[in-house]
Order: sequence, then C-alpha cells, then structure tokens
Amino acid sequence: MATLTSREEDYSKWYNELVIKADMAENSGVRGCMVIKPYGYAIWEKMQRQLDQMFKDTGHENAYFPLFIPKSYLSKESDHVEGFAKECAVVTHYRLKNSPDGNGVQVDPNAKLEEELIVRPTSETIIWNTYKNWIKSHRDLPILINQWANVVRWEMRTRLFLRTAEFLWQEGHTAHVSREEAIDEAEKMLKVYTEFVENFMAIPVIQGVKSPAERFAGAEETYCIEAMMQDGKALQAGTSHFLGQNFAKAFDVKYQSKEGKQEYVWATSWGVSTRLIGALIMSHSDNNGLVLPPNIAPIQVVIVPIHRNEEQLKAISELAVILTSQLKKMGISVKFDDRIEYKPGWKFNEYELKGIPVRVTIGPKDLENKQVEIARRDKLEKHQHSIDRLAEHIQNLLLDIQQNIFNKAKLHRDSLITEVNSYEEFKKILDEKGGFISAHWDGSVEVEEKIKAETKATIRCIPLDAKEENGICIYSGNPSKRRVLFARAY
Amino acid sequence: MATLTSREEDYSKWYNELVIKADMAENSGVRGCMVIKPYGYAIWEKMQRQLDQMFKDTGHENAYFPLFIPKSYLSKESDHVEGFAKECAVVTHYRLKNSPDGNGVQVDPNAKLEEELIVRPTSETIIWNTYKNWIKSHRDLPILINQWANVVRWEMRTRLFLRTAEFLWQEGHTAHVSREEAIDEAEKMLKVYTEFVENFMAIPVIQGVKSPAERFAGAEETYCIEAMMQDGKALQAGTSHFLGQNFAKAFDVKYQSKEGKQEYVWATSWGVSTRLIGALIMSHSDNNGLVLPPNIAPIQVVIVPIHRNEEQLKAISELAVILTSQLKKMGISVKFDDRIEYKPGWKFNEYELKGIPVRVTIGPKDLENKQVEIARRDKLEKHQHSIDRLAEHIQNLLLDIQQNIFNKAKLHRDSLITEVNSYEEFKKILDEKGGFISAHWDGSVEVEEKIKAETKATIRCIPLDAKEENGICIYSGNPSKRRVLFARAY
Repeated sequence: MATLTSREEDYSKWYNELVIKADMAENSGVRGCMVIKPYGYAIWEKMQRQLDQMFKDTGHENAYFPLFIPKSYLSKESDHVEGFAKECAVVTHYRLKNSPDGNGVQVDPNAKLEEELIVRPTSETIIWNTYKNWIKSHRDLPILINQWANVVRWEMRTRLFLRTAEFLWQEGHTAHVSREEAIDEAEKMLKVYTEFVENFMAIPVIQGVKSPAERFAGAEETYCIEAMMQDGKALQAGTSHFLGQNFAKAFDVKYQSKEGKQEYVWATSWGVSTRLIGALIMSHSDNNGLVLPPNIAPIQVVIVPIHRNEEQLKAISELAVILTSQLKKMGISVKFDDRIEYKPGWKFNEYELKGIPVRVTIGPKDLENKQVEIARRDKLEKHQHSIDRLAEHIQNLLLDIQQNIFNKAKLHRDSLITEVNSYEEFKKILDEKGGFISAHWDGSVEVEEKIKAETKATIRCIPLDAKEENGICIYSGNPSKRRVLFARAY
Repeated sequence: MATLTSREEDYSKWYNELVIKADMAENSGVRGCMVIKPYGYAIWEKMQRQLDQMFKDTGHENAYFPLFIPKSYLSKESDHVEGFAKECAVVTHYRLKNSPDGNGVQVDPNAKLEEELIVRPTSETIIWNTYKNWIKSHRDLPILINQWANVVRWEMRTRLFLRTAEFLWQEGHTAHVSREEAIDEAEKMLKVYTEFVENFMAIPVIQGVKSPAERFAGAEETYCIEAMMQDGKALQAGTSHFLGQNFAKAFDVKYQSKEGKQEYVWATSWGVSTRLIGALIMSHSDNNGLVLPPNIAPIQVVIVPIHRNEEQLKAISELAVILTSQLKKMGISVKFDDRIEYKPGWKFNEYELKGIPVRVTIGPKDLENKQVEIARRDKLEKHQHSIDRLAEHIQNLLLDIQQNIFNKAKLHRDSLITEVNSYEEFKKILDEKGGFISAHWDGSVEVEEKIKAETKATIRCIPLDAKEENGICIYSGNPSKRRVLFARAY
C-alpha cells in the first residue's frame, strides 16, 4: 500500500489522496460530479439516520418535491435568482434523436421546452409555489417539512465532498404564523445541527449569524455553525435561515389569522450536506488515514486473527464469534476479518486507513493467556485486556474515543482562535497561523469586501455568544460593538 | 368531506381523487413531476427501510452515482440508447443571465456545455463507466451495489405514482465473473422483490420473464413480477435484468480470471420505484378510501376518544397513554388523536380515508365496562374488547389484517386469470372481464405486435412456473410449448 502524502507536506493533496485511498469517493466522468463509494456512503447513511431521527423528534415530516424548477419560479425572489442563476444546470430539451451521420445521438431541435427547467440548486421556490395551495388558514400552520435530495450548483472549481456540482443534502422548509415562531424554528434547527455535529461527528462548532453579505440569497438572517479544519481554514458546517416573508410575498402565500385577517406566512429553511463528510475527514484524520468518531463509523470494531494454522484460526474464531455477538447486542457494529488471502500487517494498515475506531487482535498466545490486544485508532495506542468483561470494556472504550476525538479537535480549534486589534496583526496571524481571527468590524459591506479582496478572509460569523464591548474596526477605525470571526474558508 | 367517486363509476377518477384526498401526492407546477406529500412519503420510507434491509441481508451495499450522464455514454449500448433517448431531459447550459428587457432571466448562450448531459433515466451507463476502473481481477468481483435515487423519463401522459416524469427508485447494479453467477443474482433479487411485495405490500404477484419485445433496453433477459389491479389491468411491480456482457462490452470492462485470461464481466440490474405505491393503492383500497396493509402503514393504530367533557377526556387519555406505550413496545405505531377541534365522526372518516388498519374508540361507557371498541379497516367491521390483554389482541389483529388483505387480493387476482384457446375468446375476455389471459403464443415478435396493435394487450410475462404443454398460438396457429400471460396494463 502506497503511503499518503503527509499533511505537513501538502494538506490539500493529503486530503484528496485520503478520500480516494480510503474508498470514500472519487471523481466521475461527469465534470464536477463525484461517485460516493460504499464506504463513504455508509457514513452518509449513518448521518442521515441520526439527523432524520432528530428532525422527527422535533416534529418534522419528510416529503419530496420536484427535481426541476421552472425558470420563472427562480426569478420570483430577486435576491434568490441573483444568488443561484449564475451556476445552474439548465434543461432545455426533452428528447435526443439519431445523428444524421448515424454516429450516436444528438439533441432533437423539435423537442425544445417552452420554458427551461433548472435542476434545483435549492428548493425554496418550488416548495413555496406548492405551499401556496396548502395554506389557507392559521390552522394549516406550522408546516414542518424536510426533504432528502440531490441538488446541483455548477461550481467551477470542485473538490470531493467539499465542493461538487451535484451533492446530497437535506433541506428543511417550514411555514409559520409569526416572525417569532419562525425565528424560534431557525434557532432550534441550528441547535439540532450543533448537537449532531458535535456529539456525532465530534466536530466542535461556533454558532453564529452571517454578515449580510454572506447571507443565503433570500434570507433575512442566516444562522450558521462554523468549524475549523486542521490546516487553519474554516468550513461552514450547516446553515439555518430565517426567510422572513420574502418567499411568501414572492409566491403570494397568505393565511387567514385567528382574527380573520389575511397575512403573509413566515418561513425558514435549513440544510446540511455531504460536505460535512469533508469536514469529518479534515477535522480528525492523520497521516496514517481516516480517524472516525465511533458514533459515525460504519464499522466500530474490527477483529483480526493472527494464526499459523487452521487449528489456531478455528480457536480464535470461536472467541471472535462470541465477542461479535456480545458487541452486536450492545448495538456495536463489528467486522471479523478472517480472510486468509490477506496478511495481518496488510489488514492493520487497511483498517488504520479506514479509521476503524477499535481493532482487536487475537493470536495463539492471547488465547492461552485468555486475553486480546486492543488498539485504538485515535491514539495509535495498544493494550491487553482479559476476555472477561471484554465487550463492556470495548463499549466504554468507544465512548472514551468519541470524547477524546472531540476534545482533541476542540483543543486544536481553540488554539486557532486569535484576538487581534489591528489590521497589521490581522494579516500577520492570517498568513502565519490561520484559524479564526476575532476582530472588530464596523458592520459595513464595504470593509468586509475590501478585507476579502485583500486577504481572502471572510467573516465566518458573528458568534451568538459574542460579548458587547466598545472597540474600533480594524480596517476603518469606525466604532464597533462586538467582535466577529474572520477566516479563510473552504 | 366530499365523498370519493366510486370505483364502479370511474376507476381512474376514483384513483386520482383518492391519491389527492388521502394526502398521498399531488401534481406540481412542473409538467409530469409530482409532489410526494408527507403521508405518501412516509409509506415510501417504510418501503425503503424494509427493502434496504433485505438488500443488505443479501450482501449489497449502497453507493451514489452522478445524476447526469454524458450523451456519449448513453450512446455506447445501442439498444439502451434506442430505449431511452426518446424521452429524456437534456441539460445543455450551465448558467442563466438577466434578460436584456430587465424582466427575469434567460439562458446564457455563452454557457453552452461542450457535451450535453442527460438526466439519468437509469444508471447502467454511468455506473459501468465507473466499474471499469474498479475491476481488474476476479478478486474484485462480485460487485454488489444498490443506489437510492431519482430518475427522469420524459413521459407524455403522466399519472400520480404510476407514471411520472421524475420518480424515486432504487437500482441495483452488480458485476460477476460468470453468466451463471449473474443469472443467480438476477433471480435472487426477483425473489427478494416477490417476498417484499407479497409479505409487506400484500400484493400477490406472478414471477416471470418478459418476451424479447418487452425486455429492458440492453438486457438479455428481464425477470419481472406482475400484479393485477382491481379493474383488471396489470401492473409491472418490479424487474430484475440479466444484462449478459452487453454493458461490459460497451464500456470495455474486463477482469483477469483465475486462469489469467482477460474476460468480459457479467452484469445484472434491478429496480422498484414509487410506482409501487400506485399498485398498493389500486390493489386494496375501496370507495371509502385507502386500505393499507399493517406492514406498510405509517400509522397502524389510531385511538379516538369520545367524550362530552374534560373529565371524561382525562380518564380516556389515561387509558390511551397506557395502551400507546404497550403497543409502541411491541413496535406498533400508534396515534392518539385527542384534538378537540375535530369531532369523532370527522376523525372516523379521516382515518378510513387514510387507511389506518385499526381504530380503537374509547367512550365513557367503555371506561365503565373496562372495554374499547375496535374497528378494522379491511373489513369495516367492529367489535368490543376488554382492556385486559388489549395490546396482544391488537398485535394479533394486525397480523390477521395483513393476511386478510393479501388473501383478498389473491382471491381477486386468481379470479382474473382466464385460460383461452382462441383469439375470439381472447378478445371477448379482454373486453368483458380483463385480467390476465393465459394463452398460447408462437414466440414471434410479429404476433405480439399485432395482438398489441389490435387489442392493446401486451405479454406481461412468461410465468416461471409455466408448464410445458403442446398448444397452438391463438393468433398464428403455429405450435407453442407454453402459455404466456397477456393483459392490458398500467
């Protein structure tokens, strides 16, 4: 097995190689679209199952809306079309025909659509066009719906998981009687995302709101969670938008209030995507491969036998089968790799590369001593454990690993938050250290744009817990009431 | 609540009204594309969960491949492109721009794709283009992959669930070292579908193979399961294709055999779609609404309180909460509808329309007598039951309902299989009774096409269990070795 490029040598190359070598995903023959391979998809399935349960526990139902959005729908909300029109896949025809030269097929010019269809980059417009017919009275509200779907944004520079033309996501779209209720919903879903990303993916995040320039196209407020990668670049891990009445007005969606008045409906939307898998990889993994938090690992424990003959393998298998069954009863996923065509050393490398949290090795000596060897992936550390109460031990170990991976990421993230009070310092930290830079900003779009143009750093968020303090903007010198977080970002 | 058109009056109208009124799905603003509403989608989720488990139990993993297929890929397998080119959505551009008149947006002519992309109508071509890089040796085989996805076929006449431009499905795509192994796989998955459709959806099916004219575009053999709807029209409920080496040859996918020879890979693909929800509705439902088999019903039991005051509701609620908790422990989904803004009669109609298998009604008299009233949806039949061992009783009742719904559908289906021995008889039965017509056919495409043109009946399948017998083709008088099943179909 060829080794990975190290993170220190080339972080970007390390990431790409890791995604490919760990069998997570690969580029397809279609520009910007990836193939998510079974191992990568198994992680997505675990994410989906967990998130879906959390959405249902907070009162949401799933539904499915069309892949295509008529061009005229997209145009109805002006900020929205501005935000998405420049990078979208447009369906113009509905038929191919044989080429006159007999060589392949071509678009049939007689099958041109009257109105072009956009492959959804997000579904607000098609959904609000639908909600219009569902909402008559305050009794029809709230509508709390989520959709699991693929979306397409014609990105020019793509990277596996992080930025792809097509990606998978979920998008929640809710409708409410009041501003307050909609804001509560947007904030509630931000909390759900925070809990999911921190407790399941073990990625610490900062909750905040976006600056106006970084808001979702069509939102009044965009809440976000921001994560910090190992290389000091930030990554937006999820967003929840308070859409005000923008889409209700664009699609004329009103309800009759208890008082009998016609009112526009209030909206939210919120989403996370397969991008999070990129964040997962970049948050925890090392030069030997993936490091997966147990809560999201498709295989949590692998058992590798070491044996010289059939008889030994048989004895080891007996123990492995008992352990597997005990672990499965605890809801722990286990793989017993008794393939004889691969050597133990090859397997060790393979499972290290794949980030399996716990490896149990059983050799003939271990059997004699009624013990096994346990290696944890997060610390590359081994120890022996008696076969007594082994399953319980592994169960506790998995909890410890989950916590340790989170703590390590948090320690690293915290070390990458720097307060600065001048633009010189800002630029110096940005270039030498990276990370989040906490600085005063005067709230103007102009300053935000200038800093971005000069340094490639953007305002990642205004943290929800930002303290009020009197400061001056590092760029303009104008007064500022609170610090915001800048960073270069994925 | 307006009543449904009856099946006897207008079956097709009954179906459409039922889909809408039961909140299953509706047409969207996009031609031919439907919105699957939460209640319909909850059924799809139950189907997915069950099928996904069955796929995993038979060794398959999930993955995800691109939505788009380059035009040139589609052309590589000649039957395949012939079958799908005439009804596909074609992406030709990747950007919109503001219209010169300032009114909305238009396609940007400067953003034309070099090669058009087809929105996948099925994924054989993109997947085999990918498998090419995954397969080098016999050790890389078999590949057993499934994908849950949306696909688009530009149907001109669409009907909710039954035929829509976009639909949801799963598609399995497997690669094997030998013809035998691939045929085994195709047959195994047909069995999985049969088990799922019969045991979970309670729809009896006939397993068979398609005639050459009805085969999947690119298959050597198409296995299928065929169901019979209440109105005497057949519906194809699932297909499993033995693709031979067609796609391996089109995409040049070879493996090195154990003997060191380069061989083309053998393939299968298999799928079922949201179309099955249409079959579910048309198999079991009646003039009062949906009838859902318990195994696929999102809500299996509804509890409706009847009360005149708060105090009564409180006492009923106490019992309802205990019952709910007991049922949930058994894995049964329950809804306690204690909304006071709706009257019991309204609720009865609503849950009848929605097809909830069991309704438990609790009134003040029932409390006194320590009993409840139980209504089963499949028989519109009521009985009293003591609150002792009530949960067990309901659990057994659900099993009985599942079986009864299947038996009823099977009895009906069996009554709609008619053997005929002449074309006159064939046409008479077709017009007067419908259903499957078992008749001798000489195996020629010409006869099949003529019968289809004259009667709109197609060969649904050559049943796997068809006995060999000497007969003569009802149309040509040529000799025939076995009967095939004809029907008009959805």
